[in-house]
Amino acid sequence: MSTLNGAQSLIRTLVDSGVDVCFSNPGTSEMHFVAALDSVPEMRGVLALFEGVVTGAADGYARVAGKPAATLLHLGPGLGNGLANLHNARRAHTPVVNVIGDHATYHKQYDAPLESDIDAIAGTLEGWVRRSGHTKDVGADAAAAVAAAQDAPGRVATLILPADASWGEGGETCEPIPPRVPQTVDATTVQKIADVLRSGEPVALLVGGSACHEAGLRATSRIAAATGAKALAETFPARLERGAGLPNIERLGYLAEQAKYQLDGIKHLIVAGTRAPVSFFAYPGMPSELTPEGADVHVLATAGQDVAAALEAVAALVAADTEPVLQEAGRPELPSGPITVQNWVDVIGALLPENAIIVDEANTSGLMLPAATAGAPRHDVLTLTGGAIGYGMPVAVGAAIAAPRRPVINLESDGSAMYTISALWTQARENLDVTTVVLNNNAYAILRMELQRVGASGDGPRAKDLLDIGRPDLDFVKIAEGMGVPATRATTAEELAEQFRRAVAEPGPHLIDVAVPPLL
Amino acid sequence: MSTLNGAQSLIRTLVDSGVDVCFSNPGTSEMHFVAALDSVPEMRGVLALFEGVVTGAADGYARVAGKPAATLLHLGPGLGNGLANLHNARRAHTPVVNVIGDHATYHKQYDAPLESDIDAIAGTLEGWVRRSGHTKDVGADAAAAVAAAQDAPGRVATLILPADASWGEGGETCEPIPPRVPQTVDATTVQKIADVLRSGEPVALLVGGSACHEAGLRATSRIAAATGAKALAETFPARLERGAGLPNIERLGYLAEQAKYQLDGIKHLIVAGTRAPVSFFAYPGMPSELTPEGADVHVLATAGQDVAAALEAVAALVAADTEPVLQEAGRPELPSGPITVQNWVDVIGALLPENAIIVDEANTSGLMLPAATAGAPRHDVLTLTGGAIGYGMPVAVGAAIAAPRRPVINLESDGSAMYTISALWTQARENLDVTTVVLNNNAYAILRMELQRVGASGDGPRAKDLLDIGRPDLDFVKIAEGMGVPATRATTAEELAEQFRRAVAEPGPHLIDVAVPPLL
Repeated sequence: MSTLNGAQSLIRTLVDSGVDVCFSNPGTSEMHFVAALDSVPEMRGVLALFEGVVTGAADGYARVAGKPAATLLHLGPGLGNGLANLHNARRAHTPVVNVIGDHATYHKQYDAPLESDIDAIAGTLEGWVRRSGHTKDVGADAAAAVAAAQDAPGRVATLILPADASWGEGGETCEPIPPRVPQTVDATTVQKIADVLRSGEPVALLVGGSACHEAGLRATSRIAAATGAKALAETFPARLERGAGLPNIERLGYLAEQAKYQLDGIKHLIVAGTRAPVSFFAYPGMPSELTPEGADVHVLATAGQDVAAALEAVAALVAADTEPVLQEAGRPELPSGPITVQNWVDVIGALLPENAIIVDEANTSGLMLPAATAGAPRHDVLTLTGGAIGYGMPVAVGAAIAAPRRPVINLESDGSAMYTISALWTQARENLDVTTVVLNNNAYAILRMELQRVGASGDGPRAKDLLDIGRPDLDFVKIAEGMGVPATRATTAEELAEQFRRAVAEPGPHLIDVAVPPLL
Repeated sequence: MSTLNGAQSLIRTLVDSGVDVCFSNPGTSEMHFVAALDSVPEMRGVLALFEGVVTGAADGYARVAGKPAATLLHLGPGLGNGLANLHNARRAHTPVVNVIGDHATYHKQYDAPLESDIDAIAGTLEGWVRRSGHTKDVGADAAAAVAAAQDAPGRVATLILPADASWGEGGETCEPIPPRVPQTVDATTVQKIADVLRSGEPVALLVGGSACHEAGLRATSRIAAATGAKALAETFPARLERGAGLPNIERLGYLAEQAKYQLDGIKHLIVAGTRAPVSFFAYPGMPSELTPEGADVHVLATAGQDVAAALEAVAALVAADTEPVLQEAGRPELPSGPITVQNWVDVIGALLPENAIIVDEANTSGLMLPAATAGAPRHDVLTLTGGAIGYGMPVAVGAAIAAPRRPVINLESDGSAMYTISALWTQARENLDVTTVVLNNNAYAILRMELQRVGASGDGPRAKDLLDIGRPDLDFVKIAEGMGVPATRATTAEELAEQFRRAVAEPGPHLIDVAVPPLL
């Protein structure tokens, strides 16, 4: 005899399936879910004040934990608020299990004020969407959602939970469903790629997804060292392992101009765990595809396949006796003087703690970051996979909850920070070890650059004004303190170094507001 | 010979059609639109740091100006961030013209990182959606969008603008297209409603939409006075005109329990400019429809019809010699002592300036507000029409830009404030006369109430914790100052009165952080 309601069967099944963190911003239709948290103590509910924080945290959590968190969202508007960071999660192939409360089934016909087409909004994420029709199905739907989220290469799974399915009695838990594991790349493909690498013609090997972790990077480095192929990592990896003792694989540039330079002269582009690169945006008179004209694209492995194993299989053929080239330890000197685009990254490179997780949304201010941190102690870098800004602070929340013993360093630009700023409050509430460094240049600096790059006719004062966010200046020290996060301001490299050192050493969140000059 | 690009033809056509404010949060795909602002100086670009501020401001602007503003949003994630406040606008029948930049037409096939299904997301707003295919069509599409937004009763119109349609040469402006005006209610319907009112049976008359403005309210009051019908306004009007010298029509309660009490015993419900009321949410064992069982619903006018004229036509039949009952002037005494749920509204009632616009998102803290302000000088009240919280601060931005000579009073709850808090920055940037009163009770107090109302089984410590936003406390003084808005804190009624008086008297935005005890 079951004594569970739908919400209880849902939470119990999620926990049994390994999902034991739920980032939440609930409303009335989710109240039975909230009440059920007390009956399943293994589930940790983490409150956020805005849904973009909820979904970004779930993205960051899974990128680090390697398994999904759940979200709890309130009808269509809640999903809408969370959509931008779910877009980034989708592009990262991050497994996420959304639970979205909806009106009771019988109530939907009345078109109450909060009624909207949740299914259609969720459908745009091109993941998995299901609506629980009955209380007794909720457990099975939850297990299916967890499996769907984790089916290789990972996706956003959305379970829409009508209030009456949640509050109804007769909930049944469901055994975990094993997700689809990555497919092995066949030997013929491996052989063909080996042949390309041995062709004697210029080759680039572009790796992404899970190939950006240690095993894939080592195999990539061996292949490059043995064959002379140029090794590149995708522009925006979900999680890139790097630092001293790991191969340092250069990332493909964000700007098409950079990428074209990196790929110049190649005749073959091998892709593994990613696709042939395209320009982030279109620009008048510029091609969308970044692969040089006339070069052939060869797919070693798609994101849903076992990319690292495929690279290792290729390495076994072409680089059997070759070791990977590993980055030596080395840090920049601690700089001095007023903050510049160069010296702030040198401070980070000089002081980056062991085993850090860098959440990078520094945008234009971070151009020099990869070089400055290349020889720092081993660390992970999480990047903005989908281009929807406002990902950094929430992802830092999730990363810190997934890895409570690792320091999380969120390098954040001022414009991007303001989309999801209330993530700071959750960092304070959960006492997370996140050090946020806000690069405050009072501008949408990337748009100043883009205004020129798209060849926009005229850059008059009214256009420029719309890219200037320094009227009034944002004071991130006050904003952070207002949400319970201790904060300081740095205008020199010395101040930044001293404040960064202290922030990393002290438990709990800290923010440093860094006055950095704009790139343009 | 045209010398306009698509963006220039768009902005020129918008201005010619009467749309001369564009709330903006642009990205790369919108750079030609931004550049074009300098060639059409009549268009005012207003920058926001988050799209939810953009869309809420457009909603507030049109509710006050009576004509649409444009928004400028960046692809699917930008629309997602703006979706919650567009949902509220949709429920308010607010005319809004969204301009959403998209990738260049030829670039979409490459599925670049920011690619997503904008059309599907916009479609959920059940308004008007069009994608400009060619530069030469952009002007005509813009004129069609403005007309569609204003077709009675008003809606969200979304124009998706591919980057190449925007930057291409050969743009053509388009003459304004007259929108569809509200239809007149036929005489038979008017007569039937008059017959119902004269039936001798208990009748309630529920008015909404444009009937919440003076003409409709006066006719409603006359009908009620002459026939004994109970007059009610819809629960969440887009804009309700009230105060001394206007009829004071009671609003239908948000809680189903209240509404049932208000409608108890009626045999006929006449609706004008709104629909038969339904419960905001479903509750176990409670009916969704609020009309008493056995009562007949009669539709005088739908939202798309000329509701005020229909009410006046009915009044001419049943209340030819009856004057409306007008609210006498009268204000509460200025109270003293620590802030309570009662005395803070008395301060507002005592000091509300002439011709104010109240943007009400006080939620549970505002329960006593209508009584305290009934006899205050004439004012408008804007309410949360769609239930998607985070509407107040952005709507205040739009209202202040629409009516620069009227004081805007945003009564805001702490939880709701945090969804779109960066609206304060736009208030500072544009030096808007907005006084924000944050009712800071450190809780999602409405959810505490709802947790009980839905009969959620158990209200253990973990459930309660998820509704408590006072760990850490939000310091709205610091948050506001961090965004350039002067702010103070009030813990007594005397402090609130003094600070409110000063805030209203001084030009530019102010915020008062009011420590109010939670209702529960």
